[in-house]
Amino acid sequence: MSKTVELARHLEKLHINNMYKNDFYWTWDKTEEELDAIFTVADALRDLRERNKSTRIFDSGLGISIFRDNSTRTRFSFASACNLLGLEVQDLDEKKSQIAHGETVRETANMVSFMADVIGIRDDMFIGEGHKYQKTFMDALEEGYSDGVLEQRPTLVNLQCDVDHPTQCMADLLHIIHHFGGVENLKGKKVAMTWAYSPSYGKPLSVPQGVIGLFTRMGMDVVLAHPEGYEVMPEVEKIAEENAAKSGGSFTKTNSMEEAFVDADIVYPKSWAPFAAMEERTKLYQAGDQAGIDELEQRLLAQNAQHKDWTCSEEMMGKTKDGKALYLHCLPADITGVSCEAGEVDSSVFDRYMVPLYKEASYKPYIIAAMIFLSQVKDPAKALMEMDASGEHRKNH
Amino acid sequence: MSKTVELARHLEKLHINNMYKNDFYWTWDKTEEELDAIFTVADALRDLRERNKSTRIFDSGLGISIFRDNSTRTRFSFASACNLLGLEVQDLDEKKSQIAHGETVRETANMVSFMADVIGIRDDMFIGEGHKYQKTFMDALEEGYSDGVLEQRPTLVNLQCDVDHPTQCMADLLHIIHHFGGVENLKGKKVAMTWAYSPSYGKPLSVPQGVIGLFTRMGMDVVLAHPEGYEVMPEVEKIAEENAAKSGGSFTKTNSMEEAFVDADIVYPKSWAPFAAMEERTKLYQAGDQAGIDELEQRLLAQNAQHKDWTCSEEMMGKTKDGKALYLHCLPADITGVSCEAGEVDSSVFDRYMVPLYKEASYKPYIIAAMIFLSQVKDPAKALMEMDASGEHRKNH
Amino acid sequence: MSKTVELARHLEKLHINNMYKNDFYWTWDKTEEELDAIFTVADALRDLRERNKSTRIFDSGLGISIFRDNSTRTRFSFASACNLLGLEVQDLDEKKSQIAHGETVRETANMVSFMADVIGIRDDMFIGEGHKYQKTFMDALEEGYSDGVLEQRPTLVNLQCDVDHPTQCMADLLHIIHHFGGVENLKGKKVAMTWAYSPSYGKPLSVPQGVIGLFTRMGMDVVLAHPEGYEVMPEVEKIAEENAAKSGGSFTKTNSMEEAFVDADIVYPKSWAPFAAMEERTKLYQAGDQAGIDELEQRLLAQNAQHKDWTCSEEMMGKTKDGKALYLHCLPADITGVSCEAGEVDSSVFDRYMVPLYKEASYKPYIIAAMIFLSQVKDPAKALMEMDASGEHRKNH
Repeated sequence: MSKTVELARHLEKLHINNMYKNDFYWTWDKTEEELDAIFTVADALRDLRERNKSTRIFDSGLGISIFRDNSTRTRFSFASACNLLGLEVQDLDEKKSQIAHGETVRETANMVSFMADVIGIRDDMFIGEGHKYQKTFMDALEEGYSDGVLEQRPTLVNLQCDVDHPTQCMADLLHIIHHFGGVENLKGKKVAMTWAYSPSYGKPLSVPQGVIGLFTRMGMDVVLAHPEGYEVMPEVEKIAEENAAKSGGSFTKTNSMEEAFVDADIVYPKSWAPFAAMEERTKLYQAGDQAGIDELEQRLLAQNAQHKDWTCSEEMMGKTKDGKALYLHCLPADITGVSCEAGEVDSSVFDRYMVPLYKEASYKPYIIAAMIFLSQVKDPAKALMEMDASGEHRKNH
Repeated sequence: MSKTVELARHLEKLHINNMYKNDFYWTWDKTEEELDAIFTVADALRDLRERNKSTRIFDSGLGISIFRDNSTRTRFSFASACNLLGLEVQDLDEKKSQIAHGETVRETANMVSFMADVIGIRDDMFIGEGHKYQKTFMDALEEGYSDGVLEQRPTLVNLQCDVDHPTQCMADLLHIIHHFGGVENLKGKKVAMTWAYSPSYGKPLSVPQGVIGLFTRMGMDVVLAHPEGYEVMPEVEKIAEENAAKSGGSFTKTNSMEEAFVDADIVYPKSWAPFAAMEERTKLYQAGDQAGIDELEQRLLAQNAQHKDWTCSEEMMGKTKDGKALYLHCLPADITGVSCEAGEVDSSVFDRYMVPLYKEASYKPYIIAAMIFLSQVKDPAKALMEMDASGEHRKNH
Repeated sequence: MSKTVELARHLEKLHINNMYKNDFYWTWDKTEEELDAIFTVADALRDLRERNKSTRIFDSGLGISIFRDNSTRTRFSFASACNLLGLEVQDLDEKKSQIAHGETVRETANMVSFMADVIGIRDDMFIGEGHKYQKTFMDALEEGYSDGVLEQRPTLVNLQCDVDHPTQCMADLLHIIHHFGGVENLKGKKVAMTWAYSPSYGKPLSVPQGVIGLFTRMGMDVVLAHPEGYEVMPEVEKIAEENAAKSGGSFTKTNSMEEAFVDADIVYPKSWAPFAAMEERTKLYQAGDQAGIDELEQRLLAQNAQHKDWTCSEEMMGKTKDGKALYLHCLPADITGVSCEAGEVDSSVFDRYMVPLYKEASYKPYIIAAMIFLSQVKDPAKALMEMDASGEHRKNH
């Protein structure tokens, strides 16, 4: 029995009817079995690809990508996932388009979606805006479909919003599932999701929020550490608490990086901006107050600079379980002495974990493909088995 | 019998041999049967897609798109059409390319077309230039093909030029054909193609010209209304007159929006620039006279502002047939109080017609696909029947 | 027997096992039989396409293109080649990406390659940098593959570096092979690879270097002509000398354009920058010395201007074999009186050779496709025969 058949049989047992034709906004919208299904399909698609089996479900069709911020990795991950399933990516680039001329989101959403099967949106810049944009966009498509404007109702993959970064955090989690030899081995593992110093400012909160909102479901002991003033969204902290209570894990907070690192099995040191400051920034942008924005930037950089000791140094790594915690990062990292004078991580630490970091990233295209697959295929277990049995190859000759 | 088979049988009876391997510049180049064929194939492709039938005619091949102006809708429509038929879009972006370094159109045309099956060009900015550019480009490819440089002679879809906007106007027309329950019901319907105020300047004339050049062939009573000074190209007016005489409809002109709206079945209020001013602008651009361009812009904006009463208000809509004329627009519209202080249309009117407007737009990808299909498939009726009978799906599993 | 079968039988006899899963940096890395294989596959793919046979080897997969300089022709050639084989192109545009934020090449290389089969890189701007970048990129992928990060190890097509321009020069050579009726007819032909005046500065050396490094392998008499001070890389001159010695041809240098043109069968007059000046420029860029760069530009333009007599005039063409040497250019050319006041070639000469020039360019997509094919297909002769026998069409209906 191939690995894919094994995975498909596992998939058959999961209650995932709700995923078909549905969107992916946040991991906490999804049940444990639904998340399990995504990991299962991701592993199966990877296995099929390794064995040169075709995984196309589309003969034609478009995946629309919308990046409201620069992006290489996520862009390529989405393009790879779409291509693997037979969709062609069309990028809605606001600089190329007339959107700046005052089109409403509703109109644009319909206009670009006549032949779209999937929409991928990254909108992480402004607290209070990213998720709202995605929701408005998809509501418009729901309406367009029920009004008979669209032949099909495309499904959403949230490629990062102001609240969650589900494709990143699920790739992170699939990585540690494989690293520790199975999801059952994650119970009781200590995870340090900690703030780290970076000379840049205004980095999104979606990764720390996504991590505490997801990892707490696995029975892990999740510690969120940051200097005072770098709080994340309270709604997400509440979700993390509830998750931990249900899963038999824990969710704690501290203002000491060291406390988080001590005996940790996994560390995820990463810079982010204070939630309150990001809210302020959103308002300044809305008001077009450039002087205010510049002033805020200076203030935040100065605030960051007070916490240069929050860095993933060798000394700090030494405090983790056997000095060998698994180091995670969504990349790119600010590496001390490499990409900046002082940053999130020592170069010797980063270099030691380079291969695991690349593996961590390698799951993202498969996670995205699995999200698309489960929202587009009615009987995903049967589809995987058919692909496994099929003589159709990804590469011929 | 499926709808597609029905449509294919209709197609069989049409005399359309001239479409194969031919270009689409202007609707008035085409016979009534050729236009009928495009509507027929567009409806069939949509029916096939709704029934999840594969409509790929290409296993590989490129659709080259050239946009000499920003564009979201047309870009996505062309990409959707190409994808539906199996072509991959490659965009010739002059900013990315060396064209600015003085390459001639002829050379560029050949260099990008070695594996191109279809060329889509939008060049609507400069009166006297858009069509010329398309013609020069396609003549070069004709020559390249006969010289043995190109393996195939790609066919053109005019995605908008300075004279006509055939993909838009045919989508508009297919929309009203379906809205009124068949092309036979259009006879005697009154259409008001009218100028409307917009705070922007220099909008292309291709839509009003395309509409009067096409709708007059359907036996409709087409009224072109605009303030004095906003005349369109006299050559196109002449075509509209001839069409009306042949089709048993009429083509009239007026300087009163109200006169056009009274008892109209269909209204198409839209801003455009005066033809003479656009000719002047082309010359100023050619001379690189920026001061002249700026002065012209100010003059045109001031001229526009004298006609703010040319707006599709509720009051004006009340004058149409039963107060319920079908409102058309190529989108995006300048909506009073939404995208501008005063514009082409009241927001309450626009909102009431939003769903029909989106449906109108939804025909465009299928119109483009039908144009490509008819220029690339030797026996289109047979091809549609084979697709209908085939077990190949657009989406599998 | 079809042309493709004939070519496939020839291919069977060649020793080309080393090409599978291997990169293409420079032509002088490859054996004569390997180069022969590329020409053979290029001709076969063209024949298959002309006969409407499908040449897809990929059902899905990505071709990653990286252009560190503007490019239309090479961009479209690469896209055409990928499309012909079933790969979708994803362009890594540094302006769109976070690379500018300090990502290392190694990290980027892995991040964009999770589902990539082919990498195409053009990096010709800076002497000493272009090849190094390609090598660093591919070494990172080799490592990523052996570390288990990547499912496959993509192969490289050098789309131009600071040293060689193999896709261009092999297209040039395939053109002259067909022009002279076979590779055996090239022996003893005189080729003038000469510098020519252009009003722009800093053109890459990769074409003259590629030509002398490749054409000398065919038993031709290759003359490199340029004004004093316009020397190319000495390493490549050495390769040309060794090639000529082995092939029974010759490689000579002169500072007289006329000497090179006299009795030449083929002329390739083209501007390039002096190697030493390009080395200097690289250092100025690395130091961020804009004043130095500007000063260098002025100096080089002035130096160029001393050699306006180095132009491919009618008079100069008259000195070639029967006045009818085959004129080559990689395009776009600087044409006197057309794209500039005084340039590389008289417009009457250029116009007379326009069709051959376009044919020359038309080989490039097939050369690229052949490079990909030979690096991705284990038994290329068998694959071509299967494609020839297959009923699968590129265009259906």
